[in-house]
Amino acid sequence: MAKQEDDFRKVISHAKEYGYVFQSSEIYDGLSAVYDYAQNGAELKKNIKEYWWRAMVQLNDNIVGLDSAIFMHPTVWKASGHVDAFNDPLIDNKDSKKRYRADVLVEEHAAKIEAKIEKEVAKAQKRFGDAFDKDQFLATNPRVVGYQEQIGTILKRLGSSLEKEDLADVKALIEELEIACPLTGSRNWTDVKQFNLMFATKLGASAENATDLYLRPETAQGIFVNFLNVQKTSRMKIPFGIAQIGKAFRNEIVARQFIFRQREFEQMELQFFIRPGTQLDWYETWKEKRMKWHLSLGMGQENYRFHDHEQLSHYADAATDIQFKFPFGFKELEGIHSRTDFDLSSHEKFSGKKLQYFDPELNESYVPYVLETSIGVDRMFLAIFSNSLIEEELENGTTRTVLRLPAVLAPNKAAVFPLVRKDGLPELAKEILEDLKWDFNVIYDDKDAVGRRYRRQDANGTPFCITVDHQSLEDQTVTIRHRDTMEQHRVAIADVKRIIHEEVDMKSWLKRIE
Amino acid sequence: MAKQEDDFRKVISHAKEYGYVFQSSEIYDGLSAVYDYAQNGAELKKNIKEYWWRAMVQLNDNIVGLDSAIFMHPTVWKASGHVDAFNDPLIDNKDSKKRYRADVLVEEHAAKIEAKIEKEVAKAQKRFGDAFDKDQFLATNPRVVGYQEQIGTILKRLGSSLEKEDLADVKALIEELEIACPLTGSRNWTDVKQFNLMFATKLGASAENATDLYLRPETAQGIFVNFLNVQKTSRMKIPFGIAQIGKAFRNEIVARQFIFRQREFEQMELQFFIRPGTQLDWYETWKEKRMKWHLSLGMGQENYRFHDHEQLSHYADAATDIQFKFPFGFKELEGIHSRTDFDLSSHEKFSGKKLQYFDPELNESYVPYVLETSIGVDRMFLAIFSNSLIEEELENGTTRTVLRLPAVLAPNKAAVFPLVRKDGLPELAKEILEDLKWDFNVIYDDKDAVGRRYRRQDANGTPFCITVDHQSLEDQTVTIRHRDTMEQHRVAIADVKRIIHEEVDMKSWLKRIE
Repeated sequence: MAKQEDDFRKVISHAKEYGYVFQSSEIYDGLSAVYDYAQNGAELKKNIKEYWWRAMVQLNDNIVGLDSAIFMHPTVWKASGHVDAFNDPLIDNKDSKKRYRADVLVEEHAAKIEAKIEKEVAKAQKRFGDAFDKDQFLATNPRVVGYQEQIGTILKRLGSSLEKEDLADVKALIEELEIACPLTGSRNWTDVKQFNLMFATKLGASAENATDLYLRPETAQGIFVNFLNVQKTSRMKIPFGIAQIGKAFRNEIVARQFIFRQREFEQMELQFFIRPGTQLDWYETWKEKRMKWHLSLGMGQENYRFHDHEQLSHYADAATDIQFKFPFGFKELEGIHSRTDFDLSSHEKFSGKKLQYFDPELNESYVPYVLETSIGVDRMFLAIFSNSLIEEELENGTTRTVLRLPAVLAPNKAAVFPLVRKDGLPELAKEILEDLKWDFNVIYDDKDAVGRRYRRQDANGTPFCITVDHQSLEDQTVTIRHRDTMEQHRVAIADVKRIIHEEVDMKSWLKRIE
Repeated sequence: MAKQEDDFRKVISHAKEYGYVFQSSEIYDGLSAVYDYAQNGAELKKNIKEYWWRAMVQLNDNIVGLDSAIFMHPTVWKASGHVDAFNDPLIDNKDSKKRYRADVLVEEHAAKIEAKIEKEVAKAQKRFGDAFDKDQFLATNPRVVGYQEQIGTILKRLGSSLEKEDLADVKALIEELEIACPLTGSRNWTDVKQFNLMFATKLGASAENATDLYLRPETAQGIFVNFLNVQKTSRMKIPFGIAQIGKAFRNEIVARQFIFRQREFEQMELQFFIRPGTQLDWYETWKEKRMKWHLSLGMGQENYRFHDHEQLSHYADAATDIQFKFPFGFKELEGIHSRTDFDLSSHEKFSGKKLQYFDPELNESYVPYVLETSIGVDRMFLAIFSNSLIEEELENGTTRTVLRLPAVLAPNKAAVFPLVRKDGLPELAKEILEDLKWDFNVIYDDKDAVGRRYRRQDANGTPFCITVDHQSLEDQTVTIRHRDTMEQHRVAIADVKRIIHEEVDMKSWLKRIE
């Protein structure tokens, strides 16, 4: 755990030091749970979005894009259920005046009991050594079994109270468990109340009434309300999909874990419209397609797993997460949901407009079913960034910090160095830079010894360094150094562009998905 | 004027019919002054942004990107002046309960007098025919001279009242001019009040106090507050720039003209940091560079002009607009502003943090001056879209509607057609499609006669149509048809990709700027 926290701290500080992620409004001491993508982060994020967009929109001739506004008609959020049900149960401590998510307080209490089990396991393991059988121990040790029973009972009761919206029982549970304010130890709690997670604002300033608007809490609804207009103007036939990338906003009470859970975040969503009854086949198809997309980046199959939802949302008849191994453990990276006709039917009801598709093969009209894949851009960023940051022990006993970003996503594809700042080397280096810049983001660096410059670009995530030396003037060759292997090759200047293209071109990376 | 309005209506309906722009939440009868970019619009907008980003960030090794959040610390907007001064003067009519911008009411009154002048001119022109000397007429006709005096007096008084924030005099002016509610004719007005154009919301739900947040009304401040962090982590030396594309929000009272003035819009901004005293040189440099960028798209030099600001904003010491000839006349497309050190100095004052740059050549520290170029993505979209939409008379007397988008920006680069849906033509067409899709967005269409398919892609803005016919099966050739010339050539299938690349590749379009 301590190791994990330390690794995560390194990720955050590396992200700042190398111009990937800054806290928002840092000079004003920051804005909690909001982050800015700095010069390298902006490029990495842009490349992630492009990699998704091309895989979805460009490569599938039955998927088109959309870019709908953040502002939508307020009734959209009645129809979607967000006005009534997008809530967190909150509780205030009367003494400390601090507010908490009631469910999180209970879950953290359960986690403490879980920690006791782990302690017992560790103790027993130490005592019995190689002979220790963990499964048997968990099943037979009376203390551990008691703890497990406690946890089960707590979580079951929490789940059923929340489902029944019995907030009084959630409070009763907190009191029975004697949960105290983590800051002050006070047990003087208010009642539990629902708090809506949507940000609200007001549109217009007409004398009579301003319209209440919400910042969209998800991008999906922008696709649903445009479904029929897109289908008709694009002349698409079912099955077909609409893909969208855009910002969404949630007024999270407890936002943390760096860019993993932000109040302002970005989603990449596909809504795929299908015939009712075919949803479970498409569910399997999209699970497979999306996993292949992730694996194409080469970040290790062992870092991904499916996690099926046990409790399904009101709109879903099947749902799974693709989880990724973040520095703080396996967590949701992408969700794949069979949303049925819940959304379109609800918009039919609230708008009074028909949202049906006439299926020429079946010769009938129906409200399509929807298969959704939804991934957080910021989580994808964190997955890639944290997975790529390595401290490597070298043969000579030193360590180097290297950011092994998939080359296709790296913010800068190459750095060009003159070995020294004289003898015409800078001029030749600049000439190479001027030629490469038409194809890639390229960096010029002539400061410090070349070894330090290599290390700087390793930490920056730049896949190639091109060094111009005196021999370059004679035979028009340079050394090209590979970030991951640190291997250097002497190559003709005329070949540099091709070599970089071979490693970074999105086209060849995307071909790994098929 | 009527012709202009008619042209503009055609632009709006074409944008809807061909999947470029839909009104937001249309099934709920729309949300005023908010629009969604549909399947083709999303691609066009994305390509516009890419064209700007590459010209700015990729091609200039002293410009880096940034992607800062929409949410910022509220003090940012105190420092920038938006909390105190980003206002419109509003007035309510007590009878109709309608709210208006007071300055717009007065300006519209002046415009009516202007219209009278035009009427007099038209009358005189008709009477005198070729002998008519307009300048002389304007200078000597007593009625016309009187109107001009009136207009001058009205606008001067309005300007000075607004500058002095003398809102009582703005109301007095409205009363003296006997301006009535355009809807009802009532002259029963309230006082004039300032109305802030920022959208406000609340962050967090802590028991004591939620933080008031604003949706950013401009993206520029995100660059200023990150200036020093970016400069240090990117190791940039002045002069250098930070470029950003992102959403901004303004609660406009009177929002109209389709996507030209929306409440939610997107900006592409460069803030270029320079030595104090060099700003007027950089101002000229950036005027020229930005105009070249526009002209590279080949939409006609005659459609652009500079319009220098007569009244400068509080932060500027020089400012000009690049105006474009929209369907409703020449209007601002891009602004180029010498912002001095106003923003950085103000953030120093409000944050208490030093925002200075140590200049190694001068061996001194200073707050840099800033040269800004700021362009609206949505306006750029409208400029391109409206300029590209042509109704062309053909030799055979028919007309065709063609959307002559610059090929580099077109949403789809090619459409592939089998001449008929049999004899193996669809199979070969799909094979070609499968090959092209790795490089471009491509459309497959096998519906209707091929002539109709051509027209559909003309209206869609697709630069190339590839038709597979029976000869294709024999000799592996296809016809390639060019959207603008309607010329058709027979070419080898093996050459198709290269031919498209030559016309659409961003690299060669960008080379026109240099």
